[in-house]
Amino acid sequence: MKPNIKNIAVLTSGGDAPGMNACIRAVVRTGIYNGINMFGVLQGYQGLINNNIIPMDARSVSNIIHLGGTILKTARCLEFKTDEGMEIAYQNLKARDIDGLIVIGGDGTFTGARNFSNKYNIRVMGIPGTIDNDLYGSDFTLGYDTAINTVIEAIDKIRDTADSHDRLFFIEVMGRDSGCIALRSAVASGAEAVLLPERHTSIDELVSQLASGASTKKSSSIVIVSEGHKAGGAYDIAKQVKEQFNHYDTKVTILGHLQRGGSPSSFDRILGSRLGFAAVNEMLQGTSKAMVGLRGNEIKTTGIDEALSRHSFKLENDLLEMTKVLSI
Amino acid sequence: MKPNIKNIAVLTSGGDAPGMNACIRAVVRTGIYNGINMFGVLQGYQGLINNNIIPMDARSVSNIIHLGGTILKTARCLEFKTDEGMEIAYQNLKARDIDGLIVIGGDGTFTGARNFSNKYNIRVMGIPGTIDNDLYGSDFTLGYDTAINTVIEAIDKIRDTADSHDRLFFIEVMGRDSGCIALRSAVASGAEAVLLPERHTSIDELVSQLASGASTKKSSSIVIVSEGHKAGGAYDIAKQVKEQFNHYDTKVTILGHLQRGGSPSSFDRILGSRLGFAAVNEMLQGTSKAMVGLRGNEIKTTGIDEALSRHSFKLENDLLEMTKVLSI
Amino acid sequence: MKPNIKNIAVLTSGGDAPGMNACIRAVVRTGIYNGINMFGVLQGYQGLINNNIIPMDARSVSNIIHLGGTILKTARCLEFKTDEGMEIAYQNLKARDIDGLIVIGGDGTFTGARNFSNKYNIRVMGIPGTIDNDLYGSDFTLGYDTAINTVIEAIDKIRDTADSHDRLFFIEVMGRDSGCIALRSAVASGAEAVLLPERHTSIDELVSQLASGASTKKSSSIVIVSEGHKAGGAYDIAKQVKEQFNHYDTKVTILGHLQRGGSPSSFDRILGSRLGFAAVNEMLQGTSKAMVGLRGNEIKTTGIDEALSRHSFKLENDLLEMTKVLSI
Amino acid sequence: MKPNIKNIAVLTSGGDAPGMNACIRAVVRTGIYNGINMFGVLQGYQGLINNNIIPMDARSVSNIIHLGGTILKTARCLEFKTDEGMEIAYQNLKARDIDGLIVIGGDGTFTGARNFSNKYNIRVMGIPGTIDNDLYGSDFTLGYDTAINTVIEAIDKIRDTADSHDRLFFIEVMGRDSGCIALRSAVASGAEAVLLPERHTSIDELVSQLASGASTKKSSSIVIVSEGHKAGGAYDIAKQVKEQFNHYDTKVTILGHLQRGGSPSSFDRILGSRLGFAAVNEMLQGTSKAMVGLRGNEIKTTGIDEALSRHSFKLENDLLEMTKVLSI
Repeated sequence: MKPNIKNIAVLTSGGDAPGMNACIRAVVRTGIYNGINMFGVLQGYQGLINNNIIPMDARSVSNIIHLGGTILKTARCLEFKTDEGMEIAYQNLKARDIDGLIVIGGDGTFTGARNFSNKYNIRVMGIPGTIDNDLYGSDFTLGYDTAINTVIEAIDKIRDTADSHDRLFFIEVMGRDSGCIALRSAVASGAEAVLLPERHTSIDELVSQLASGASTKKSSSIVIVSEGHKAGGAYDIAKQVKEQFNHYDTKVTILGHLQRGGSPSSFDRILGSRLGFAAVNEMLQGTSKAMVGLRGNEIKTTGIDEALSRHSFKLENDLLEMTKVLSI
Repeated sequence: MKPNIKNIAVLTSGGDAPGMNACIRAVVRTGIYNGINMFGVLQGYQGLINNNIIPMDARSVSNIIHLGGTILKTARCLEFKTDEGMEIAYQNLKARDIDGLIVIGGDGTFTGARNFSNKYNIRVMGIPGTIDNDLYGSDFTLGYDTAINTVIEAIDKIRDTADSHDRLFFIEVMGRDSGCIALRSAVASGAEAVLLPERHTSIDELVSQLASGASTKKSSSIVIVSEGHKAGGAYDIAKQVKEQFNHYDTKVTILGHLQRGGSPSSFDRILGSRLGFAAVNEMLQGTSKAMVGLRGNEIKTTGIDEALSRHSFKLENDLLEMTKVLSI
Repeated sequence: MKPNIKNIAVLTSGGDAPGMNACIRAVVRTGIYNGINMFGVLQGYQGLINNNIIPMDARSVSNIIHLGGTILKTARCLEFKTDEGMEIAYQNLKARDIDGLIVIGGDGTFTGARNFSNKYNIRVMGIPGTIDNDLYGSDFTLGYDTAINTVIEAIDKIRDTADSHDRLFFIEVMGRDSGCIALRSAVASGAEAVLLPERHTSIDELVSQLASGASTKKSSSIVIVSEGHKAGGAYDIAKQVKEQFNHYDTKVTILGHLQRGGSPSSFDRILGSRLGFAAVNEMLQGTSKAMVGLRGNEIKTTGIDEALSRHSFKLENDLLEMTKVLSI
Repeated sequence: MKPNIKNIAVLTSGGDAPGMNACIRAVVRTGIYNGINMFGVLQGYQGLINNNIIPMDARSVSNIIHLGGTILKTARCLEFKTDEGMEIAYQNLKARDIDGLIVIGGDGTFTGARNFSNKYNIRVMGIPGTIDNDLYGSDFTLGYDTAINTVIEAIDKIRDTADSHDRLFFIEVMGRDSGCIALRSAVASGAEAVLLPERHTSIDELVSQLASGASTKKSSSIVIVSEGHKAGGAYDIAKQVKEQFNHYDTKVTILGHLQRGGSPSSFDRILGSRLGFAAVNEMLQGTSKAMVGLRGNEIKTTGIDEALSRHSFKLENDLLEMTKVLSI
């Protein structure tokens, strides 16, 4: 039996990711299309506690599908991890008769939603929104495709100058625990080497790989370094390589937070739209404590408990192997 | 038993598509990595007949992964459809002891490869490269993702001005028989309406849809028109709408061939790399008269006969339905 | 003696142009910095008449410097050309004690401001904002640089495919009376020919120029057509050329309104900032009925009467001559 | 009297800059148009010494106008500073009967050309190509406009996320001795503060400025740091600020060499074309030991001796003052 839902709120939490706005638009309009009153919570769980909750109509999400960031803003919120925080949040939702909460974010966001839903009679649906692509239940998370496009556009520019001189470039990309961005960026930019948090690569190995490229007359080399690599960030690695390997001049770029921004790619806008659309429809059908995700080319639902309990080791080993062949 | 293959040639044929260069790079380097002598054929099947075949080494595909177009050029070739044309092509390959031919292109390209392989002892593998996404055997074809990104970047710019005035914009996109580009572009750009070759939409229906948007205070509207729509191109449709509906000023953009160009997106670079890598590896394992394609997140092989015989009606009806909800 | 000005309003009028938001930001913040109360008028002169005037503070122009379009919107307004319209507009300004009006736009916008200022005791300053670069008093108008960048990015994509096939591309760009966009786009894209409203070029001349390129082994050619060219738009010209010249396949792109949008270039953001800053400072110093413009690398003031009375024939003939040499 | 020049060579030297290819194309084609045999020197002055000099025809510079980097490559060359090096270079030119040398680069490049021309009977013309905009004799150097566009596109992406959280971003841009890139980037991106090599800014001043922004409810702040700033790079400054000012979370981006690459902007393509065209025409008229530059909107010639002897303190103080007003 379908539940009788009248009011739904949506929030974004954790690090922001391109495509969140496309997703918010889809959530709000799908709700309104189905006769639901829609609300937006500003600054994630903190906004729930601070009662920063605003009504949203179809026009309130006009002309946002192409914008980076999130119009609802995000924030980290320690208070929501406490019983007191959750209670205040619940009262604020109850005061508006809000029955359902849709959260867009990563692991931490889903954990908060699960705990909240375990304690209170609020339906929750999670949407995987993080550039890190480190969640179980969706082949790709919202923002990942855009982030890689951002990285390769930067590397393309560096390659212009790499080709003019004989140089070795170290590019540090995001990924504390996950090499997803680094690996796909390496494939898509034709990088000569990639250092991942999930793999140990010694400086000796790296130097030997670069030396082999030099011997086959590569005019320059690009090394992508995950910020979470054990041997250090791009600066440290460049310094260590330089000590052993003087063939090239070494240069460092730290991309930093620009990887979180930018207008979302078509892939992320479509993914955000589909996930938002599905999350509301699933909730209206009675689903709760679940996430929607992309599997193959279809949107599927996974229980949040299952999603959180299963380790998401997503590193695509076939791509890593391929990189070695394609960078000869 | 693995065949004894020593020499492989690669060509691009039909309309060019972003990602073809990434794919050529992968084909050439994967072959070389496996000890094969690699050749490039210039200008598609015409180059086979004209004996325009050059040896390629690992450096000949350096710094091309990010380039639009195809370094091997493409051409349409009627002569290859004749017995005489195929015989000359075969002799040119034989003279170099080339055992395998990898073709990157669409339907027509695959048909040529199939016929050639039926007649001569040349192994062939097909790689789906076309912005139209109209092939069976691959969820996405090489170039499709980039083409949609190109379209939505154009529409984003139009929306800047759409939002400043009260206007109705008609954007004509590619797709003579397939609405794939139009539909995904419509979702990703938040267009108010989309006209597809596969669907009849009368001018009355369109006007009524636009009138409903106007009544809900949309400040402007964007209509995407496939070039293959039955009621005419964007100019014709704009004129017909204008006669019935004077609420807005109407403006037309014809994107044309810029949709075929541009630096490939990360998605297409990775797809091209994977497909090229897989095509060579499959051929070295003994596969022939087959294509490689992306299904879900995996590369799979399909027989060219099967691929050509099955109608590829790929229009994503769920996305079309969703568009109506999300453009309220 | 400095005038005693307390309240200033700003509006954008005519076709919108990238950089208008950067300029609005500069106007508002420069006013506030100098202790002035600032107002924004929505939808140009129509907003003056409709009393659509809102107070603006420093935060109201946060995060807009990079946005295309104009947050104040523009509109064409016939009513402001009448005595009655101007009287209503004046009363609406007077009711708020607004002493000064800063208008961003083109020729028509400046004419309105001049007439208004002639009739009423309102100080006016004009800022040249139009992609057409057709105003006297400023070497470059706001939006022109971005528009050319937009055109050449489109042509770069077309060239990718032009280089793959042997083709002739016709690109229609904006410019009813002015060939400024067409000419600079032609230089910057390396186009083979350019058709301008200010120059008669017969189809015979064009065909002979293209034939000469073909004879020197150019693999493809790009022809830029101003929408205002006497022999017709890009479609007409392509058709006429095709009848005489069968060497290439011909393809047409109509860029249309996407030329008005897009994130402003650094040039336009800096120009908009400087012009807005100068317009307010000049007004506070007592200047009125004048425009600010860029001459060389300096901001200079010109009387609006002078600006309007002098014909602005800006076509850069040296660039036109150069184009012929550089496209050999 | 016009000199009798039959053969001219062109080279690029120093750090590469976007627009160099557009300039090479203009030099080569203008020479050929005037009946001169044109040569390209690979890898700057090193190529002169290594006899790495190739003939160039009109087609050899096809389809390069839009490419970053330089097809002639650049290199630093100590050997050319010696008498022996210059003598070898001279013999290599003489062997081909080359009468004129056109060099594209910065200060060091011009010094080399001057010394060479003082010693040998070779005509030289200099073209200012460097992203740093630090040469006397040209308002803007080739590549500067593109570099700033690259920086602001990066900052726009960072601002997306800056607006979602409450954060303080430090962006390190190029400029060891010159704050030109930093200053114009700050204006164009609406940065809250900018640290330049030419100005001492203490951490206390910076913190007080940021605190004032926080008090006026700015949701986030962006600080641009020239790599040459006395108080250290972006990492050092961020650390020092963090110690005093805990209002925001701090994040660092080091743009590095991506600022040298990318497809040149229309401004740089046009500038490169004009400078290359003028340099050849000037040389053919008899000018030598001079540079061509942009002044206002015209191309003017300056003696290399004068250009080198005059200190180019180009920091635009009016823009620096304006930044303070516009970032309130």
